[in-house]
Amino acid sequence: MARDASRALVASTTLHVIGIALSAVSVGMAACALLELLTSGRDAAALAASAGLTAAVGGLLWRLTRPGAIRKRHIFSTVAWTWVSITALGALPFILAGTFAVGGADITEQFVNSLFESASGFSASGSTVLADFESPGRGLMMYRQLTHWYGGMGVVVLAVAVLPFLGVGGLELISAEAPGPASDRLTPRVSETARRLWVVYIGFTAAAALAFFAADGFSSLYDAVAHAFTVAATGGFSPHADSIGHYDSVAVETVAIVFMVMGGVSFSLHWRAVAERTLPYHRNSEFRTYLLTLGAAAAVIVVLLWLENGLSLGSSIRAGVFTVASLGSSTGLSNATGPGSPGDYVMWVAGAQLVLLLLMVVGGCTGSTSGGIKVMRMRVLARIMVRSVQHSQKPRAVIPIRVGRDIVSESLVSRVAGFFLLHFMLVLGGTLVVTALGGDFVSALGAVVSALGNMGPALNEAGPTSNYAVAFTEPARLVLALLMVIGRLEIFPVLLAVMSHLHRGKALTRAVRR
Amino acid sequence: MARDASRALVASTTLHVIGIALSAVSVGMAACALLELLTSGRDAAALAASAGLTAAVGGLLWRLTRPGAIRKRHIFSTVAWTWVSITALGALPFILAGTFAVGGADITEQFVNSLFESASGFSASGSTVLADFESPGRGLMMYRQLTHWYGGMGVVVLAVAVLPFLGVGGLELISAEAPGPASDRLTPRVSETARRLWVVYIGFTAAAALAFFAADGFSSLYDAVAHAFTVAATGGFSPHADSIGHYDSVAVETVAIVFMVMGGVSFSLHWRAVAERTLPYHRNSEFRTYLLTLGAAAAVIVVLLWLENGLSLGSSIRAGVFTVASLGSSTGLSNATGPGSPGDYVMWVAGAQLVLLLLMVVGGCTGSTSGGIKVMRMRVLARIMVRSVQHSQKPRAVIPIRVGRDIVSESLVSRVAGFFLLHFMLVLGGTLVVTALGGDFVSALGAVVSALGNMGPALNEAGPTSNYAVAFTEPARLVLALLMVIGRLEIFPVLLAVMSHLHRGKALTRAVRR
Repeated sequence: MARDASRALVASTTLHVIGIALSAVSVGMAACALLELLTSGRDAAALAASAGLTAAVGGLLWRLTRPGAIRKRHIFSTVAWTWVSITALGALPFILAGTFAVGGADITEQFVNSLFESASGFSASGSTVLADFESPGRGLMMYRQLTHWYGGMGVVVLAVAVLPFLGVGGLELISAEAPGPASDRLTPRVSETARRLWVVYIGFTAAAALAFFAADGFSSLYDAVAHAFTVAATGGFSPHADSIGHYDSVAVETVAIVFMVMGGVSFSLHWRAVAERTLPYHRNSEFRTYLLTLGAAAAVIVVLLWLENGLSLGSSIRAGVFTVASLGSSTGLSNATGPGSPGDYVMWVAGAQLVLLLLMVVGGCTGSTSGGIKVMRMRVLARIMVRSVQHSQKPRAVIPIRVGRDIVSESLVSRVAGFFLLHFMLVLGGTLVVTALGGDFVSALGAVVSALGNMGPALNEAGPTSNYAVAFTEPARLVLALLMVIGRLEIFPVLLAVMSHLHRGKALTRAVRR
Repeated sequence: MARDASRALVASTTLHVIGIALSAVSVGMAACALLELLTSGRDAAALAASAGLTAAVGGLLWRLTRPGAIRKRHIFSTVAWTWVSITALGALPFILAGTFAVGGADITEQFVNSLFESASGFSASGSTVLADFESPGRGLMMYRQLTHWYGGMGVVVLAVAVLPFLGVGGLELISAEAPGPASDRLTPRVSETARRLWVVYIGFTAAAALAFFAADGFSSLYDAVAHAFTVAATGGFSPHADSIGHYDSVAVETVAIVFMVMGGVSFSLHWRAVAERTLPYHRNSEFRTYLLTLGAAAAVIVVLLWLENGLSLGSSIRAGVFTVASLGSSTGLSNATGPGSPGDYVMWVAGAQLVLLLLMVVGGCTGSTSGGIKVMRMRVLARIMVRSVQHSQKPRAVIPIRVGRDIVSESLVSRVAGFFLLHFMLVLGGTLVVTALGGDFVSALGAVVSALGNMGPALNEAGPTSNYAVAFTEPARLVLALLMVIGRLEIFPVLLAVMSHLHRGKALTRAVRR
């Protein structure tokens, strides 16, 4: 009895959180419906209906449940279910507006594509199945951008406030090198931390919007806001089919580069920059490694483009640096002006594409909105590697692994290795499934790495000037959408939620048998 | 002064070992020269000259040096340099016989190809650059097979007697589940262990030769011995261009399957089977995991071949099981009767090829002649992965990692993770270099994984019916040859040898500056 009561309470906490999250999303839908009315008006009804439906479901859940004392191990399933719910209801505007009812797509394909676009949006991946960027209304296209922004908001809190609290985030690693103990968690209370991070996140978005607006010659506030949503969340969607390539402007690309790179930096660092009115970046060793990685990748790629791809040095630098900033921060914007243009990296030599694939795996810094394994974890992995060499020489030596000045506990070291192995297995398993569902090897591998790292564009068929509906079958698209959610939540929450349900299922079966 | 004396002594130990190894190889060359005289006689002079030259160099080194007390950390560079020396002088017969002086190959290409074939032979990889299998004399072709056998002999001792002694072999893991302490090392003395293992190795080869001879209808003793050398070393060379496909015989293929799979099993297990007159295999958990892996891979591939490749069920089973046994034991023999035949796995669907790529990475059991990461290490890696999930639920729990009944020390766990990461980095780095030297991504990735795992055939351009001279540029072939040696020595020895020389170089520079 006591156990059942505790379970009911858990369920209500999860539903309560889902209710709040859906209500928040419905506000965004309503705002976009309004925007739609002010512009084309084409998709206003679809957006309004979605907002109403989402608000109804969210409001009911919010009001009819009450949060209870939550157990640590249930936080995971709460997070996972919230993300799944938002993704599902977030697909409504696309379904109702018939955004994907093109090219003779049946209802199943419309559902799959809407769900894919929603998953890609809220996970801030930026892979798209959209082929026609002109038909949807401006409100709906802004809603598409907004899914990124909501997702990024959730991630910031998840990465900085929730995961470390549970002992699985990479942030335990950061706290090892911060000046005071736990100073990177800003404050011990989750809600206060979240509030502060959201302020920074909103400020970051506003700054990006202003910069884009200025760089574009103050021509389109709409575009500026749309791309600001993308860079803050390191998403990848753009209202233009040719993404940043649409402008063909060095100024716009420079703004994008700066904000994409900064979007891949821990938002608690940004908070400190604001709160302490200093620049804390250069003192952060993860930030330094991050910049170094981007710099090295850009150097290699520029040389390869220049010497082996036959591009001019100028084009090589412009295409190389932009793409590295985009994929290195797991954003996924592109400056390709069309298929075969310098920024269309699927035309690059294989070596350059392999570097991009590596950047997709690495991702940005811990506590940012970027995806992938994260720079801090990569540093620990590198140290594990070096230590194994040292141990082969001195088998009995005790060699601690440090991050900055502090020693990382062996338990944490092992967990970072485990995370990497899990990531690796998901890439292998995902590639196996996607190739079995009918994709060529490189496209499948690229797309799986991209999905799991919340990147957006991938290789071969799924490059920056292509779209996923062309490259992959419907079931493969669903698998990729699932991988985006798994990658976004840093694997563990989804895994534990599934395991917990399997466990409950087993317990149920056992109970029934008796 | 004391330091210099110790250094001179070390150098002489290394040279002493190289001398013995070269002398042993020269005996094989001389035997093959004799065989050549008894058959075609075409390449007898080249083999005899190589034998003479190798014997002279080897004999001189052997006689003019004396072994001294060797420090543990110098064993690595001794092993690495011995392997490099054998590979270099082992290329002599191919160079002198002009084996690769075909198709307008200049002297550089002949050197590169001879070195490649020698590296592939002694590392028991089995990748070949040979296009014309008929022109070389039978003695030279047997010498090519013999390089495998010598390599395998070295590996058995290296894996079972030398590496664990230094605390880096996977065998520490085995010893954890053997009945008595250290019983898998058989005896504490290296030379006695080596002698026993060689007896088993020779017995294994003889049994394989007899079985091949009988399966082939007692038609060719030459072929039987040639393929016995290959399976004992899990090499991959065959005197026939179409490998085992030459026979198109289920009996021969069955013999090959059995001996390839058993070649991927620890030779200390084989020793126990002989010495204790029992079958210890089923009690060994690594062996069970190995068979399970092969079984699962075969099942997946057979189904894919049957349903997606449109092969008959019979052909699917025959091609699938043989290829899994071959690549799962890192042998590399093929039962393809020609390009496009069922055994030509580059024609298989991408999913089936991905499974093969995974098998290449895994390799056989610890203490066998197979390459790759090894089953035992994979088990530890899987446990690290599972533990990280458990830790995400209970961050403070102390969860030991077990192999069989015994607990693996955390230091060893971390070293296994380090080995995997090193392997992974080498695959990435190697693929980057090979693609930069002009290869497509899949061919390069496949060849690098294959080389590092001492497999032989790879994917795409470098499939079982192709050859590496067609698929890769000369510099790329050299890189792959180097990777074969690195993979064969389980990475650490080569790395440490290079580091130690860099260190000496630095010390020298510093000394000169003063």
